[in-house]
Amino acid sequence: MPHGSDSLLVQLFIIFVAAKLCGELFERLRLPGVLGEILAGVVLGPYAFRVVIPTDTVYSMAEIGAIFLLFTVGLETSPQDLIRVGRVSLNVAIAGIAVPFVLGFVFLKLHGEPLHEAIFIAAAMVATSVGITARVLRDLHVLKTRTAQIILGAAVFDDILGMVLLGVVISMASGGGVNWLHLAFVTAEAVAFALFMIFVAPRLVGRMKPGLQKMQTSDAPLVLALAICLGLSVAATKIGMAAIIGAFFAGLAFADHAHHWNLEPRAQAINQFLSPFFFFTMGARLDLSVFSRDVLMVAGIISFLALISKVIGCGLPLLRHGWKDALKVGVGMTPRGEVALIVALIGLQMNVISQRAYAVVIFMTAVTTILPPPFLRILYRKESQAAVSQTPLSPGDESENVSGEIG
Amino acid sequence: MPHGSDSLLVQLFIIFVAAKLCGELFERLRLPGVLGEILAGVVLGPYAFRVVIPTDTVYSMAEIGAIFLLFTVGLETSPQDLIRVGRVSLNVAIAGIAVPFVLGFVFLKLHGEPLHEAIFIAAAMVATSVGITARVLRDLHVLKTRTAQIILGAAVFDDILGMVLLGVVISMASGGGVNWLHLAFVTAEAVAFALFMIFVAPRLVGRMKPGLQKMQTSDAPLVLALAICLGLSVAATKIGMAAIIGAFFAGLAFADHAHHWNLEPRAQAINQFLSPFFFFTMGARLDLSVFSRDVLMVAGIISFLALISKVIGCGLPLLRHGWKDALKVGVGMTPRGEVALIVALIGLQMNVISQRAYAVVIFMTAVTTILPPPFLRILYRKESQAAVSQTPLSPGDESENVSGEIG
Repeated sequence: MPHGSDSLLVQLFIIFVAAKLCGELFERLRLPGVLGEILAGVVLGPYAFRVVIPTDTVYSMAEIGAIFLLFTVGLETSPQDLIRVGRVSLNVAIAGIAVPFVLGFVFLKLHGEPLHEAIFIAAAMVATSVGITARVLRDLHVLKTRTAQIILGAAVFDDILGMVLLGVVISMASGGGVNWLHLAFVTAEAVAFALFMIFVAPRLVGRMKPGLQKMQTSDAPLVLALAICLGLSVAATKIGMAAIIGAFFAGLAFADHAHHWNLEPRAQAINQFLSPFFFFTMGARLDLSVFSRDVLMVAGIISFLALISKVIGCGLPLLRHGWKDALKVGVGMTPRGEVALIVALIGLQMNVISQRAYAVVIFMTAVTTILPPPFLRILYRKESQAAVSQTPLSPGDESENVSGEIG
Repeated sequence: MPHGSDSLLVQLFIIFVAAKLCGELFERLRLPGVLGEILAGVVLGPYAFRVVIPTDTVYSMAEIGAIFLLFTVGLETSPQDLIRVGRVSLNVAIAGIAVPFVLGFVFLKLHGEPLHEAIFIAAAMVATSVGITARVLRDLHVLKTRTAQIILGAAVFDDILGMVLLGVVISMASGGGVNWLHLAFVTAEAVAFALFMIFVAPRLVGRMKPGLQKMQTSDAPLVLALAICLGLSVAATKIGMAAIIGAFFAGLAFADHAHHWNLEPRAQAINQFLSPFFFFTMGARLDLSVFSRDVLMVAGIISFLALISKVIGCGLPLLRHGWKDALKVGVGMTPRGEVALIVALIGLQMNVISQRAYAVVIFMTAVTTILPPPFLRILYRKESQAAVSQTPLSPGDESENVSGEIG
């Protein structure tokens, strides 16, 4: 409505259009659109051309955007697949988390960074971005190959392990020192929460079905899912985890019923509206002037370590299946995305990491996101050609489930 | 994420759940759910139990909620129907706007209210709530009857005329006095904008189809619709109309393609998430202590005038088709909803109307919303029974297009 709030609408309009235009431009250059949305924030934000100085409301919407982003990722993740996928995926995920974390942490400590900053940056190096990986494999029509299945399974485990790690890191940072008893308790809490959400919560949602049909509220399943998404986001913060972890598990609890209730495209719609604010403000927080020669060097090394640590860590458990399979899985697990950015953002908000550490993580995310897709295209060329020649494709397919928006 | 924003998530969670629970309760009592959502705000808000004191961010989200509410109404309205429906609907709409406005304005001036307050309350008495009317007729399975078609057509004209009137009233109020030249200019601008949006804009959107298919951004039609929704909201405020009018026309421009692009359920999802904040804060602004005996009397009279003025105004053009058809259309056009509340809210935000005038409008909205549905059930009993006996119904129909959320 009029006066005062005018400026909010103008801001929302500029941010939304700028983010989406830059995203489109990047997609046309065969780069992930999300990087374009972040770049829009860097260029128009307070540290560059100052076209948009986001208000508190915009930052709040960005936060809610992050919640729906992870809620949608949860909706697209099947708890059965999570349970079913074999030891291979779990091994890939564990090694793929341990190697980047250790390599990153050791380098940063040797380079003389403070403990918490080293932990945060190392934690940001850990989580593979499911969205980009899945998107590329889907575009190549190789989602049904064995290695693709392993990658997807491992990416899911990786997400959860990364999230637990994030919870641990946050509680460590907010607790001041490293309290091992507290750490054990927080970890146990996170694991219990995760186990409950994976094994029990989906069944509870299933049991609600008859009750939901009796509800008079229009669209009761969506309303319930949104309420639980908000509720678990709150609950996660109460046990010291990030709100987005709760949102992810809320999505996971509804994943089995997402199709029946048509939840996914509708959660995705909320996402489409809110996520540009998230990625734009992410860029708007980036002070480009911190990219001194030293920071650029650190960013370069961290990016290099992020690349090889995933290829090595994730490839290793696959080595007995041949180096090509190992390489496929390793490269497929390389892209980092929204989780890395969220870890860095939380660190920045908690004043645990500096502007330059934040810049390093954004740089690393960009590098690990831009480089793997072309390599995947080369590695999967044979399977891709076979798949394309077998099945006639509908390029105008409207039911895009794996969206480019997610990381 | 953590600290500070915790409280935002807690607020959002409480508001969302409380609004939806009260809405469900009201639906079970066969009352419109939206009244329950408002009541939740009244009870938990700052003037009663003070469980939730909404922050600026929540009010901003409420404002965006109003925008998506009207965007969705626009999406559900066909510009062709708007052009095609005959003179009857237009006459019903015009008489149905003139009679309540004149009756309300004359009474309020006689009662000694200030000019602007009288204009705002009278303007709030004007707009029929399409959502409730359509919902009731749909529940009775009489949407295909001639009178129902007339009601729906008239409700659409009524919406636009009411919105133009709202624009005029706002610009009058913000301009200080009644500048007739300015008024004529604003009216011409509003009419030109409306004509452009009804006749030209839908074709422009149609022409964008080939270009949209080439877009790399996932879900390009939805993204474009959201961008245009925000853009026209801004544009509307720039020519002195309310932002929601722009949002309505944005929806209207996409209405013809809403089905092809599956826009409606997805816009509705954003709506489902945001509209509870709108209705809740609407209630939270209501200071119950203003309901003195005098205010209650005024509220009672205004509600009575709101009821009979629509029945008379909308029934009159139908009288030659028999009193029963006239009564059906008159009663069907009676419910007021979100537009009335928005008019009052804008008046309150502009400091043009008082808390007690705001309370009068909420009271009037409640009365005109609660009373007509039972009368409609009686008036349409015969047609309803015939329709039900003819077609086997699917009560579990999941594709609810006419949502109870809309007013």
